[in-house]
Amino acid sequence: MKTFIRGALCLLLAVMGVPGWARDALPSWQDGNTKRAIVAFVEKTTREGSPDFVPVEARIATFDNDGTLWAEQPAYFQLLFVFDRIRAQVPQHPEWKTTEPYRSVLAGDMKGLAAGGEQGLMKLLATTHAGMTTDEFSATVRDWIATARHPETKRPYPAMTYQPMRELLAYLRAHGYKTYIVSGGGQEFMRPWVEQTYGIPPEQVIGSYGELRYELRDGTPVLVKEAKVGLVDDHAGKPVGIQRFIGRRPVLAFGNSDGDLEMLQWTTAGDGPRFAGLVHHTDGKREWAYDRASKIGTLDKALDMAGPRGWTVVDMARDWRVVYSNP
Amino acid sequence: MKTFIRGALCLLLAVMGVPGWARDALPSWQDGNTKRAIVAFVEKTTREGSPDFVPVEARIATFDNDGTLWAEQPAYFQLLFVFDRIRAQVPQHPEWKTTEPYRSVLAGDMKGLAAGGEQGLMKLLATTHAGMTTDEFSATVRDWIATARHPETKRPYPAMTYQPMRELLAYLRAHGYKTYIVSGGGQEFMRPWVEQTYGIPPEQVIGSYGELRYELRDGTPVLVKEAKVGLVDDHAGKPVGIQRFIGRRPVLAFGNSDGDLEMLQWTTAGDGPRFAGLVHHTDGKREWAYDRASKIGTLDKALDMAGPRGWTVVDMARDWRVVYSNP
Repeated sequence: MKTFIRGALCLLLAVMGVPGWARDALPSWQDGNTKRAIVAFVEKTTREGSPDFVPVEARIATFDNDGTLWAEQPAYFQLLFVFDRIRAQVPQHPEWKTTEPYRSVLAGDMKGLAAGGEQGLMKLLATTHAGMTTDEFSATVRDWIATARHPETKRPYPAMTYQPMRELLAYLRAHGYKTYIVSGGGQEFMRPWVEQTYGIPPEQVIGSYGELRYELRDGTPVLVKEAKVGLVDDHAGKPVGIQRFIGRRPVLAFGNSDGDLEMLQWTTAGDGPRFAGLVHHTDGKREWAYDRASKIGTLDKALDMAGPRGWTVVDMARDWRVVYSNP
Repeated sequence: MKTFIRGALCLLLAVMGVPGWARDALPSWQDGNTKRAIVAFVEKTTREGSPDFVPVEARIATFDNDGTLWAEQPAYFQLLFVFDRIRAQVPQHPEWKTTEPYRSVLAGDMKGLAAGGEQGLMKLLATTHAGMTTDEFSATVRDWIATARHPETKRPYPAMTYQPMRELLAYLRAHGYKTYIVSGGGQEFMRPWVEQTYGIPPEQVIGSYGELRYELRDGTPVLVKEAKVGLVDDHAGKPVGIQRFIGRRPVLAFGNSDGDLEMLQWTTAGDGPRFAGLVHHTDGKREWAYDRASKIGTLDKALDMAGPRGWTVVDMARDWRVVYSNP
């Protein structure tokens, strides 16, 4: 009977043809050492009988978002969202034209904004991210992601996600990996659009978050976003977020900056095969070239560690055939 | 070609036999209104073409643990774990014999313990749950769950889980539901054993948690459990935990006490079909009978709400053929 079932299955696979990923699951990656390292790792961890085989329930892969799955210049896109929201709401708040930090945002005065320091930024975040329900905030983000344009490229933001990384996410999932986002960005800012864009469901999005307050409004329960930080999911906050949300150590992790260093450390300190990857922004023509000296996405200590520790560094200019996804 | 594939698939299903759940997925439930209500809900939400069809990615089911999936008398089992840990560690802490709240625990003096109030309990929790790494704590829990016995029934704790609820979890999963625990109990206390016992992986366990500190010990990263509360996942903390961890509203939720009231409110306030269930502890012979007056698992307000709101109340004595799982 067993033989018969196996026979029927083989027949079925034969008539259905070779699955897509077996041809080339990573067409936007140049054939070279980086692509070979990724494919070799995935194959050895998912092939039955391999000494490095990882059971399917342990196949956890975590990805930073800003600078790893989509661009982050000239500023984190969530900050550009904040600026867009301030501009959109100014008719209801005429006093913002003369009050900091709003005035600087409206005047496009980045120096003025920088002068306000962290306190100014927190005020902007509170204005645009707190005091509303989770449903209201989601609707705002969905509307923004569908209509807003990047100030320099004029592309919609989903079209500033990296095609090679989207292929990598799909390739990992086709091999039984569960893909997670582990980002310093806001969890509630990512969830409304990442499922459609990356194929990552909301319950696999770990990010920074604020406290929530449960209350009844006319008998209907709502969750109100408060202006109080719950987790800053960056640097050491990343392993903390991973443990809190997943409770297992990733097998593979990808980042692009020193903010991902602890996640890569935590991932690779586990037993058995582990993979750590860094996207190095080397492509000033197609994207932006930056690393050690950049204020956004600083890649310095993690870049020094990568060589000695065998972490895979993706050289964007060399390793990627295309950068952005089509809209 | 399509016809051929369909033919091959039918053949395959035929030789493999009828799947188990199609016979009776809930054999430990008495045939009656409660079982019929559960089956009717699952069928209408998962049958293609049904007006109440729920797409598979939205099929989220959340379950309280204490009193819903396993027993909780004469005290929450996590508290019995705390007592066992104090007794096990007393050789290293002889001073505990004369220091509260340890003295009360060692003497089995529950009145003395109660006199210490919340402060005494927090001290015991800190002693037994903090100051160690997440790996060390997991190992301790795994050892306890494998060896400890319930003080009254003398059964191992996994044998004090409810067989009908375990069948319900499996039945939901067979219909594409993703099953979560949403418990006031400690997340790190549940994760080491619930995967084997309930089939629920660590990343689907939401519970109360403390803060974690990331540090390097001789170059190796560890996460240290701190004596600072991060989330109390009870009452209003349950919808907060659900939003934080899942980011979607459940379609079905099950609890047994007023601590689950907000979770059931939040679940049923969503659009479309929703199911709220309460386990009512009515069986003093096979388990414990308690509700409004009990200090543990108080079921009062939620019981009053159940009727008017159409929540399903499981009468343990009437609805369950068996209570406990076999060890």
